[in-house]
Amino acid sequence: MSKGFSRRGFLTGALGTVAVAGAGGALAAYEPSRSATARTVTAIPLRGTHQAGIATPAQDRLAFAAFDVTTKHRADIIQLLNAWTLAAERMTQGAPVGTVDGRDEHVPADTGEAIGLASSNLTITVGFGPSLFDNRFGLAARKPAALAPLPEFPGDELDPARSGGDICIQACADDPQVAFHAVRNLNRMAFGVLNMRWFQLGFGRTSSTSSAQQTPRNLLGFKDGTRNVVSEDTSAMQGHVWVGASSDQDWLQDGSFLITRRIRMTIESWDRDRIGDQEAVIGRTKVSGAPLTGTREHDTPDLAATGPDGLSVIPMDAHIRLAAPESNGGAKMLRRGYSFTDGADPLTGQLDAGLFFICFQSDPRAGFIPVQRKLAADALNEYIKHTSSGIFACPPGVAAGEYWGQQLFA
Amino acid sequence: MSKGFSRRGFLTGALGTVAVAGAGGALAAYEPSRSATARTVTAIPLRGTHQAGIATPAQDRLAFAAFDVTTKHRADIIQLLNAWTLAAERMTQGAPVGTVDGRDEHVPADTGEAIGLASSNLTITVGFGPSLFDNRFGLAARKPAALAPLPEFPGDELDPARSGGDICIQACADDPQVAFHAVRNLNRMAFGVLNMRWFQLGFGRTSSTSSAQQTPRNLLGFKDGTRNVVSEDTSAMQGHVWVGASSDQDWLQDGSFLITRRIRMTIESWDRDRIGDQEAVIGRTKVSGAPLTGTREHDTPDLAATGPDGLSVIPMDAHIRLAAPESNGGAKMLRRGYSFTDGADPLTGQLDAGLFFICFQSDPRAGFIPVQRKLAADALNEYIKHTSSGIFACPPGVAAGEYWGQQLFA
Repeated sequence: MSKGFSRRGFLTGALGTVAVAGAGGALAAYEPSRSATARTVTAIPLRGTHQAGIATPAQDRLAFAAFDVTTKHRADIIQLLNAWTLAAERMTQGAPVGTVDGRDEHVPADTGEAIGLASSNLTITVGFGPSLFDNRFGLAARKPAALAPLPEFPGDELDPARSGGDICIQACADDPQVAFHAVRNLNRMAFGVLNMRWFQLGFGRTSSTSSAQQTPRNLLGFKDGTRNVVSEDTSAMQGHVWVGASSDQDWLQDGSFLITRRIRMTIESWDRDRIGDQEAVIGRTKVSGAPLTGTREHDTPDLAATGPDGLSVIPMDAHIRLAAPESNGGAKMLRRGYSFTDGADPLTGQLDAGLFFICFQSDPRAGFIPVQRKLAADALNEYIKHTSSGIFACPPGVAAGEYWGQQLFA
Repeated sequence: MSKGFSRRGFLTGALGTVAVAGAGGALAAYEPSRSATARTVTAIPLRGTHQAGIATPAQDRLAFAAFDVTTKHRADIIQLLNAWTLAAERMTQGAPVGTVDGRDEHVPADTGEAIGLASSNLTITVGFGPSLFDNRFGLAARKPAALAPLPEFPGDELDPARSGGDICIQACADDPQVAFHAVRNLNRMAFGVLNMRWFQLGFGRTSSTSSAQQTPRNLLGFKDGTRNVVSEDTSAMQGHVWVGASSDQDWLQDGSFLITRRIRMTIESWDRDRIGDQEAVIGRTKVSGAPLTGTREHDTPDLAATGPDGLSVIPMDAHIRLAAPESNGGAKMLRRGYSFTDGADPLTGQLDAGLFFICFQSDPRAGFIPVQRKLAADALNEYIKHTSSGIFACPPGVAAGEYWGQQLFA
């Protein structure tokens, strides 16, 4: 669990009067308190070359929202992105969006449920969907060629109401209340400009994005993302994750393409499957996470190995074979997914649970799309179905004084 | 955040062979590992006079499920409760339910997603709903008089599909994946005996049950449960929480009545309200949590105080006035609620979020019911609606060799 300084550090005075400046106030006024327990400051800076929440270490909890634009005015969107950037910077540093109390007539600038909670490594990442680039806001000429709705894949059972969207927010933190608070407050600021289209809570990370992190387990009970791109691999980050100078759209350079897939697992069926079949479906040993051709988790899978029976040790339809860079012309993505549950399915009484898959890549036409096509033959398909889908172009990070997407709207 | 020993400590041998005994194995075989980082063991014992998960300190995360019995055979229920008790004891001590891998033909006895996670103060608490005591299983004569479906309250908008149930499980832990894992595995064991009726994830606790805990905030942004019964108050626990010797049903002595209410908050409306009105609705100052008649959170509200205008300082319809023991003939409950969100409301685009209220009491006829009737006049009703409801009788704790509810079925 991460630690961070407390939001309480920003609240001073009798009766809890908030002394910090409002949402437009100077960040220089921040002075994190050092409590008696001397908690380590682990807040992640919002500003930088790239947006935080991609290469930064994957936090434990997720709140993800997609929005439709309801305003007709481009200026409203720009104004909102300005306000969002300032608010997000405050929240990621553990501060409220603005003053909570004060005179009776004051409407709180922050909803308050994160007061007293640590900054919790909160990151907030913004992306723009293909539909934002239609004829409403004069952005059609700035649409990246790769930002197209995803093709239909075999077995898709997508719910349009929880797919797509003009704009998305990915909020990750080690405390779910901090992540929820971030989305709620940005949503609130968007009143009259955006309407929330869908929302997904993720309760446990299923990927590591740093070699310093332990590989987590997904709801299949297997370690997930063992071969994920890690941020320390700068070559892979430059080649496969960040949009480079050769992009057809300058504004997206140093950004990335984000794809979301809500993958429902029929865990009740999976849980009745014998261990030998589960391990053959994945291509790894369940407890250790080692490939079936190795003994340790990070052993490289030997896709050519055959057993005494002459058959492949890692079956031809095993998930890790079909998803491997070696099977996809070297295609790699940075995955950043989370386990979810949305309660019991009213029709079946089964848990509506699975993996909210998130990946980042420099070009989905060379990343997610060909790999997902390859996965049409995946033995795992017997136990999963994709129920929502989204694609978003995430602009680069913001420099001092900039707002999210300024390069796009300028 | 709590720490605990790792489930990894139970997994030994090459290729991760699980060395612990199966679900029926002896607990004496457990030997928690002491890792190099020497994490503190904080597992909470399952067995004792009372069930864990009531008076034990409220953990940060919740997974709650209610089930309908589908078998016709009383013996099946008894067998399941036996198996559940053993499995729950293992899980609360950080162990898997049973062997994960082994021979190819073996179906894993544990779903695996909590391997490597700390025990995280997991508690699992079981309750029996009124419907279990109908004529199906010969329990009608053992039904406590107080275990009746709750009366209708003004403003109820209950969804029957996510209300009620024959049996419930409350799993609380400081890691949500550990809580989810517990419910999932107990659900799995119940195949053919129970069917999950509804499930609720709670992402942040809204109550303290120990004076050593800081008071958390609910999604209204206010500190919640400041005047909650705490476990250190043994007099209140005996008088208001635990079922005593005068109960009409001996089997329930040392148990408690559990009530759940899924309280949706119209947070978008609340968030547009001015601070003076929010504080008048609750009766407390938002940031400090002090009653409007005091300066510090734990100051006792002065319900008689009037201002210069002659009006009550804590308004007549303020939430803390109407919920106060002083307004309800001394009625007290132990609250153990959690904030929830179930995503965006497809009709409105608003967040479907609020408080999953949980309380424990020795008799709901002297606890929740009269207080909830009093709250018909609550100013807060403008911003909330109750969307699900449940009542369950939680049997006492299990002694060595006993199973949950043994006193009821014996």
